[in-house]
Amino acid sequence: MSAAPLFVTLEGIDGSGKSTQARRLAEALRAQGREVVLTREPGGSPGAEDIRKLLTEGPPDRWSPETETLLFTAARRDHLERVIAPALARGAVVICDRFADSTRMYQGLRGEGLRELVDRLHAMMIGREPDLTLLIDIEPKTGLDRALARQGGEDRFEGFGAGLQARLRQGFLDLAHAEPGRFAVIDGGRGADAVAADILDVVTSRVA
Amino acid sequence: MSAAPLFVTLEGIDGSGKSTQARRLAEALRAQGREVVLTREPGGSPGAEDIRKLLTEGPPDRWSPETETLLFTAARRDHLERVIAPALARGAVVICDRFADSTRMYQGLRGEGLRELVDRLHAMMIGREPDLTLLIDIEPKTGLDRALARQGGEDRFEGFGAGLQARLRQGFLDLAHAEPGRFAVIDGGRGADAVAADILDVVTSRVA
Repeated sequence: MSAAPLFVTLEGIDGSGKSTQARRLAEALRAQGREVVLTREPGGSPGAEDIRKLLTEGPPDRWSPETETLLFTAARRDHLERVIAPALARGAVVICDRFADSTRMYQGLRGEGLRELVDRLHAMMIGREPDLTLLIDIEPKTGLDRALARQGGEDRFEGFGAGLQARLRQGFLDLAHAEPGRFAVIDGGRGADAVAADILDVVTSRVA
Repeated sequence: MSAAPLFVTLEGIDGSGKSTQARRLAEALRAQGREVVLTREPGGSPGAEDIRKLLTEGPPDRWSPETETLLFTAARRDHLERVIAPALARGAVVICDRFADSTRMYQGLRGEGLRELVDRLHAMMIGREPDLTLLIDIEPKTGLDRALARQGGEDRFEGFGAGLQARLRQGFLDLAHAEPGRFAVIDGGRGADAVAADILDVVTSRVA
């Protein structure tokens, strides 16, 4: 296996198992002797975690979609500058639970012209895509059941109902279809062990 | 005097007397029976005030110029949506202590390409210029003396030294020169009463 740096993101609707799988992937690669930086968005650096609080706390209408997109982009810029880029530069694998594709979906699908705005802001201020994006695909019903069973505190972006989750799922699949070289679609409807094995196969084949 | 709405901003280097003059202008216009919304940036709306704390607290290198510009733009977008635009729509005069011109100078002058980035972000996410911008022009030495005498807590953007203040002053004058229809340059080196009288003359002539 080469030491080529690899920036891996995990995406998917709420309850798809991204965080669990990100952790398992990090453990598996560390067991192979790789340096792994396991991180997540929004957040991942001290400044971005402060911005995360503004995004995840308060009422659902605290920010307009446009302001929200600016805050996500500010957090991502800080995360990229202070954590992701330095880690990749020293040869570490970076595994990030959600990245720009989540903004493309969760903010970009909220209204007319927003998807284009998200893309323009990304091109201007971030400009970096992951080397590999693992889309963990599940039925919205499965995701909602898991999310409800968990009932975390940061639920502003969850519990928006099955209709939205179905739109998000299709949106993520469309992204994957448009960029087959970057995305790998993983069937997340199975047990965590089977999903983790699939993911490790995909990642190992890319790093090899 | 017509009831036409008027969006007035005050700009200038630190210690130029913007806040004092904004307050005096608001009082004078209220005495004439106008509804006035007196506000300031960064901040001016509940969300933008939360973002202000991220910008004014912490060490000077807490954010890169790019992330800082994104946060200023997020705060401005919220302020515009929630306070400025609704006030103008109902016919109020809005007086704002600092606006986009401060970002053009304080962030835009921090490095290669930043001024263009600030302008592009403004065009994309804000798109609104004030009807009238009062540039209160003072010698950097006068401004520094006043700022040091005051010694407020939010001093991340102050105390950068006379060299920077001289560059900022020239930058503001260049902005005013480029947009004479929007800017009025006020000599801020005189006593507060003389400055306030000048400002009221300018504003009254524009509203009349």
